[in-house]
Amino acid sequence: MKKKLVADEKKKVADVAAVTQHAQPASSSPPAAVSTPMPEPVAVVPEPEPVAVPVAGPDGRRRAIIEGVTPQLDGGRFAIKRTVGDTVTVEADVFTDGHDALSCVLQYRKAGAGDWQETPMRALVNDRWQGEFVVLDLGRYEYTVTAWVDAFKSWRHDLGRWVQAEDVAIALRVGEKLVEQASQRATGGDAQWLARRAQELVGQKELEYRRRLGLDEDLARLMTLYADRSLALQYDRILAVVVDDERARFSSWYEMFPRSCSAVPGQHGTFRDCEAWLPRIAAMGFDVLYFPPIHPIGRVNRKGKNNTLTPTADDVGSPWAIGAAEGGHKAILPELGTLEDFRHLVHKAKEHGIDIAMDIALQCAPDHPYVEQHPDWFRWRPDGTVQYAENPPKKYQDIYPFNFETADWRALWDEIKSIFEFWIQQGVRIFRVDNPHTKPFAMWEWLIGEIKQSTPNAIFLAEAFTRPKVMHRLAKLGYSQSYTYYAWRNTAAELGEYLTEVCQGPGREYFRPNFWPNTPDILTEALQFGGRPMFMSRLVMAATMTASYGIYGPAYELMEHVAVKHGSEEYLDSEKYQLRYRDRQELDGPNSLCDFIALVNRIRKRNPALQSDWGMRVHQVDNEQMLCYSKVTPDRANVILVVVNLDPHYTQAGWTHLDLEALGVDPQQPFQVHDLLTGAHYLWHGPRNYVELNPHRMPAHVFRIRHHLHTERDFATFEG
Amino acid sequence: MKKKLVADEKKKVADVAAVTQHAQPASSSPPAAVSTPMPEPVAVVPEPEPVAVPVAGPDGRRRAIIEGVTPQLDGGRFAIKRTVGDTVTVEADVFTDGHDALSCVLQYRKAGAGDWQETPMRALVNDRWQGEFVVLDLGRYEYTVTAWVDAFKSWRHDLGRWVQAEDVAIALRVGEKLVEQASQRATGGDAQWLARRAQELVGQKELEYRRRLGLDEDLARLMTLYADRSLALQYDRILAVVVDDERARFSSWYEMFPRSCSAVPGQHGTFRDCEAWLPRIAAMGFDVLYFPPIHPIGRVNRKGKNNTLTPTADDVGSPWAIGAAEGGHKAILPELGTLEDFRHLVHKAKEHGIDIAMDIALQCAPDHPYVEQHPDWFRWRPDGTVQYAENPPKKYQDIYPFNFETADWRALWDEIKSIFEFWIQQGVRIFRVDNPHTKPFAMWEWLIGEIKQSTPNAIFLAEAFTRPKVMHRLAKLGYSQSYTYYAWRNTAAELGEYLTEVCQGPGREYFRPNFWPNTPDILTEALQFGGRPMFMSRLVMAATMTASYGIYGPAYELMEHVAVKHGSEEYLDSEKYQLRYRDRQELDGPNSLCDFIALVNRIRKRNPALQSDWGMRVHQVDNEQMLCYSKVTPDRANVILVVVNLDPHYTQAGWTHLDLEALGVDPQQPFQVHDLLTGAHYLWHGPRNYVELNPHRMPAHVFRIRHHLHTERDFATFEG
Repeated sequence: MKKKLVADEKKKVADVAAVTQHAQPASSSPPAAVSTPMPEPVAVVPEPEPVAVPVAGPDGRRRAIIEGVTPQLDGGRFAIKRTVGDTVTVEADVFTDGHDALSCVLQYRKAGAGDWQETPMRALVNDRWQGEFVVLDLGRYEYTVTAWVDAFKSWRHDLGRWVQAEDVAIALRVGEKLVEQASQRATGGDAQWLARRAQELVGQKELEYRRRLGLDEDLARLMTLYADRSLALQYDRILAVVVDDERARFSSWYEMFPRSCSAVPGQHGTFRDCEAWLPRIAAMGFDVLYFPPIHPIGRVNRKGKNNTLTPTADDVGSPWAIGAAEGGHKAILPELGTLEDFRHLVHKAKEHGIDIAMDIALQCAPDHPYVEQHPDWFRWRPDGTVQYAENPPKKYQDIYPFNFETADWRALWDEIKSIFEFWIQQGVRIFRVDNPHTKPFAMWEWLIGEIKQSTPNAIFLAEAFTRPKVMHRLAKLGYSQSYTYYAWRNTAAELGEYLTEVCQGPGREYFRPNFWPNTPDILTEALQFGGRPMFMSRLVMAATMTASYGIYGPAYELMEHVAVKHGSEEYLDSEKYQLRYRDRQELDGPNSLCDFIALVNRIRKRNPALQSDWGMRVHQVDNEQMLCYSKVTPDRANVILVVVNLDPHYTQAGWTHLDLEALGVDPQQPFQVHDLLTGAHYLWHGPRNYVELNPHRMPAHVFRIRHHLHTERDFATFEG
Repeated sequence: MKKKLVADEKKKVADVAAVTQHAQPASSSPPAAVSTPMPEPVAVVPEPEPVAVPVAGPDGRRRAIIEGVTPQLDGGRFAIKRTVGDTVTVEADVFTDGHDALSCVLQYRKAGAGDWQETPMRALVNDRWQGEFVVLDLGRYEYTVTAWVDAFKSWRHDLGRWVQAEDVAIALRVGEKLVEQASQRATGGDAQWLARRAQELVGQKELEYRRRLGLDEDLARLMTLYADRSLALQYDRILAVVVDDERARFSSWYEMFPRSCSAVPGQHGTFRDCEAWLPRIAAMGFDVLYFPPIHPIGRVNRKGKNNTLTPTADDVGSPWAIGAAEGGHKAILPELGTLEDFRHLVHKAKEHGIDIAMDIALQCAPDHPYVEQHPDWFRWRPDGTVQYAENPPKKYQDIYPFNFETADWRALWDEIKSIFEFWIQQGVRIFRVDNPHTKPFAMWEWLIGEIKQSTPNAIFLAEAFTRPKVMHRLAKLGYSQSYTYYAWRNTAAELGEYLTEVCQGPGREYFRPNFWPNTPDILTEALQFGGRPMFMSRLVMAATMTASYGIYGPAYELMEHVAVKHGSEEYLDSEKYQLRYRDRQELDGPNSLCDFIALVNRIRKRNPALQSDWGMRVHQVDNEQMLCYSKVTPDRANVILVVVNLDPHYTQAGWTHLDLEALGVDPQQPFQVHDLLTGAHYLWHGPRNYVELNPHRMPAHVFRIRHHLHTERDFATFEG
C-alpha cells in the first residue's frame, strides 16, 4: 500500500520543473508583488511563521545547497542600491553532497518583468561562486541564484581520469545516455548534432578517439545549453536592487534661501530673482539647487530675528513653520511668486543642468489649514491646546508636529504622499526631507516605494542627524542619500575612521553619504574660528571624500562664520528667521570662495574616481595634523590622491606611507602626481613621499596620479 | 466617500491586538509547524516570494522597529544550539521614530507549547537591547522580540523635566488619562489602585506632591504590568534553539572495535567480551563508547588484511562493508552476538555511566539485502554492474553507495530513518554518522528533526572531514557534534588560530567541535614519529581545547604508531580489516597511557571550564614551540590555563603574555597556578611568567588558577 503511494507521488514530482528550496503550497505564496499598496486592515493577524523550523524541499532529490548570497540586506528584507550602468556582483556559497559537479547561474530581471535572464556563475575558492549583471534601467531589479548537480560535468570530469579501458568503455555508454537525453531537450540542428554525437560515443571508432569526442569543448558547450535542470534548486529568497539615476550617486548640492535673492537690499526675494542666480550657481559647478520650504509661513507664534519670540510686524518668520491662511504644503509663499513662477524657475534651472530640490518638512504652523481641516492629525492636550514640537525644556512654539498615532493615519499618509506627487507634477524630483526620523519608518518605506514606482528617478535625501541605526534604517527603507556626521569630524583620525566606515563598511550597499561642511543649522566651531584655510579644507574634503556633497551658500563662499552666541552652532542673524542681502561685488570679489569652489567642482566632474564612494582608501601620514586618502575607479584608470593639512594656522609637513597596490602604482617605478588645485607636478617613488602644505596658500593637494609609461628614454612621459 | 471608508477601517484595525511587522493575510501563514513531515509532492510550485519588496505593517501606527536580532542563523533559517540549563542571551536593535520611550520584551516558549513567556529587555547603548532566558527542557524552544512605543514611560520622563507649573499641571491631566486607561486593563486591587492614583494626579493636593505621585516607582511598575500594547510590534521572525542534554556539549569518546575485544588471541570478540572492558573504559573516564558498524559484513568483494583485494577465507572484512545474507543495517554480525546481547551490553554500559554510540554508515556491501530488494536504490551502469563507491582512480569495491537521486527516494529516506529508530529502540541514542556529507543535506535535516522530535536527547556526530562550508551546513541543519581538522593542526600558530575559530567564531552557535587526535583512518605523521610526548600532548590538547573529544583505543593508550607505508595515515595491520588482540598486561603496564588519560579525564570532570567551548582564549608565549590557552566559566569561578610544549624532543621554555582580564586575575596581586597534572604550585604575578616543559617528563601544564584571597597576613592563602 505504502509503496503504491510512493510510486504515484513519483510521477507527480517528476513533472515539477523548477522549484524552490523551501517552497510552500501554491496557496501560501502570493505572486511577486511589485507595487506597495498601503497596508490593508486585517481582522485576524497570525503570528509570524517560525522560519527556523526545518522543512525539506518538495523534492528530496534537489541536492544543491545555496546559502550566503551577497549582497543581501537583513535576509533580503531590503533592496541594495545601484545607479544606471552599474554592475551588480553577486556571490553565493554553492555546494552539494558528495563529489558531483555543480552548475550555477545568477538570475535577474526587472521587477515585474516576468522571465528571468541569467548568466553563469564561476566557482572561486572554498565553495564560493560569483557572477554579475549590469543594471541598465531605472527602477527595481530582482536577482537570485539557481544551481543544480550537473551529471554531464561530473561524467566529463571522470572520463578524463579513468585509466582502464573497461572503465572508459562503460563511461562512454553512460555518456551516450546523457547526450541522447540532452538531444531531446535541444531543438533544431543542436538536437541532431547531439543525437549523432551520442551514437558516436558508442560507435565503431577507437576507444581513445571516442573518449576525446566525449571531452570535446563543443559538446560541453551544448550540454551546458541544454543541461538537465529538472532537479535545479532556486535560492529561497528573491533579492532586490533599486536602480537610481546617476545623480543619486554623484551630486553637488547648493542650498539657498530664495527670499534672500533679491538684488535690492531689504526686499523679499522672488523666484524670478533666483533665476538670475542660476548662471552663477551653474558656473560654480552645482547640479542640485535646494531651497528651504517655499510655502506660506504661519503667523501664529511666528519667530522673530535670531529665533526670538517677540517678532515685529515685518518679520518674515521661519520657512519651516509651514502653512497659513494662503495655504500649506502645496502652496507657495506669495512673496516668492506664483506656482507658474516656480515652474518657470524649475525649467530654467534644468537648462543649466540644475535640479531644484524641495525641502519637505512634515509639520505645521498653528494656522496651517490642516489644523482646522484635520484636527485629529494633531495631539490635543486636555487644556484644548496642541502639544507643539518640544524637546523639554525646548519648545518650538511655531510648529505643530503631526500625531502619527492618529486613528486617521491612512488619510494622513495619503495626504503626505500627495504633497510629493504635487511637486513632482511641477517638475521637481529631488526631495530633501526634514527630520524624517521623527516620522514613522513604515510610512517612508511605503511612500518612497510608491513614489519611485511612478517616478523612478526621484531622489530622497534624509536630513536625519541622529543615532547611527536610525539613519541606516532610513537608508535601507529607501532614502537615496543621507546627511552624515561629517561636519563634526575634525581630526585626521576621526575623519579617516569615519570615511572608512561610510565608504568601506557594509552600509555602502544602501547608505549614500552626502557630506555638508555647513547648513543653516550647522556653523561648526571649526568654521567659526578656522578662517579661510578651514573653509577651503572642509570644502575640499566634502567634495572629494564622498561623491555627493553640498554647501549652504552664499554663507559658505562668503565665509560667514559668526555664531549667534558663544558655544552655539547657530548663525548670527540667521536666514532661518530673516532676509539676508549679499553684495554682488563681494560674491565675485577676492574674498569669495566662488572660484575655488568652481575649481573643485570641475575636478569632481572630470575625475570619475570622485563620482563614486567605493574606491576609497585612507593612507598613513606621519603627521597627525595631515590626512591622506585616495579614490580610484574600479579599472584604476582614474586615481585621485588627496592630502589635507587640517591645521588652519601653520604649515604642516610629513611623509606619506602610501598603499601602492590600492593606487595601482608599481613600487619599482616612479610615478607623477599632478596637483589639480595648483597645477604643480611632482615625481614620486614608492610609498614614502614628502608633503608640505601651507594652509594660507592652499591647505590641500588633490593629486591625479599618472603612471609611468615605461619609455626608457623619457622619464617625463606619462599617460593621461 | 473616501473618508467614510477610512473611518470604517479604523475600527477594525483598533481591534487587532498584536500583529507582526510584515504579517500576511491569515490564509498565507500556516500555524507554527513543529513536526517536520517528509516533503509532499506538489503539482505547481511557485517561485520564492521576493522578500525584499517593502510592505508596511497592517497598522501604520505600530512605530517600533526591531532588527538585527541575535543569535540568528541565516535569517532564522536554522536553529541555534544550547544544552539544558543554558542561558540564551538575545540582543536586538530596537528603536522608533522621534523621541518617544520604548518598552521591549524577549518572548520565548517550548515549540508548540502555545503561549509566549516573556522577560523584559534592557537598553544597552546605541539602540541595542538585551534580555535572556534559560532553557530548562530538552527539545526545541522558540524566541522572538516584541516592542512598543510606551506612552507612559515618555510621559514619566517628561514629567520629571518640566520646569513651569503650567506645563506640570497639563502633564498631570495627560497622566490621569494614561493611568485611568491602565486601570481598565488591570484587574482586582491593581485596577482600583490605578483608578485612585489617576484621580489623585489631578486632585486637590499641591502640584509638586502630585508630580511625585506621577513619578512614583509603584505606579511605574503597575503601568509596565498593564502597559498599552495595542500598537506593539513583534519581530517578523520566530527564531529557534535546539536544546540538547549535557552530553551533546561535554563528552569523552572512546572508539573500540568490539571484534578485537576477545581475551583470547585470534578469537573473534563478542559483546560479552566488550562488557569485560567497561570497567576499564569507565575508569579511564570515558562516557561514550563508540563501535564501528556491528552489522553483518559483506562477502562479495570482501577486503583482506591491510586493504588488499585478495582475502583469505578467514578474513573478517571491513565492518563498513555492511550487509550480507544474515541481514543489513538492522542486523548484528552473528560473531558479535545477538540483539539480546547487544541490549545487555547497552544496559551494562549505562550502569557505568557510558552511552554506546552506533556508527551509521549508509552504504551497502554488494550482498546487502537492499541490493536485491531495492535495486532502484542503486545506480546501475549500462553493463549491468553497480557503480560502486569511487573517487577516481580509487575504488571501494566492497561498498555500493545509495543513489539518492532515485525516483524512489521517499521510500529510501523512510527506510534510513527506520534504521535510526530501530537502534533507538535497542537503547542507543548517540550516533556517529559516517560521511554524512555524501548524502543529501535535505535528508539529514528532515531525519534529525524527526528523530529529535521523539528522542530529544539523541546526539548525532558528523564524520565529515571535508570543506568548511559543508561541515558547517551539516552542523546548522542539526548535527549535534562535528569532527574537525584538529588532527592536522600541528604548530602553535595553527592550533591557536583553529581553536579561536571553533570556540570564538560565529559557528559556535551551532557547530560543536569534537577533537580526535587519532581515528582508525587517521594515524597522523605527528603520532607516527612524535613518540610518547606527542601522544601525551595531543591527548591533553584534545581533552582541554574542546569540551568533547575522543580517541581511538586501545591503539592510543598503547601508542600504536606504525603506518602501513611511508606517507600514509593508515595503520599497519589496521583493525578495519582484521582482528587485533591486545595483551591485558600491556594495557595496564608502564608503557600504557591508561593512567594518564584517566587523570586528564578526571581533570575534565572536575573543572567546569573544560566542559564548554565558549570561555576559551589563546595567550601569547614568546616561544613558537609552545602554546598557551585558557578556559573559564562565565562567572570565572573556574579558570584553567594550559601550556603545551609542542616539541616532542626537547625541553622548551618561554615567557607568557597572559590576558589577565580574560583570566579574571588582578594585575596588582600575585596568583597561584596549580598544575593539575603534576600537583606542582607556582606563585605568578602579572602577565609575564616563566614556563619550562621537558616533554619526556610532562609536555604540558594544566593549571588551575587560584585567586589571591586578599588576606594581608598570609600570601599563601588561596581560594578553591
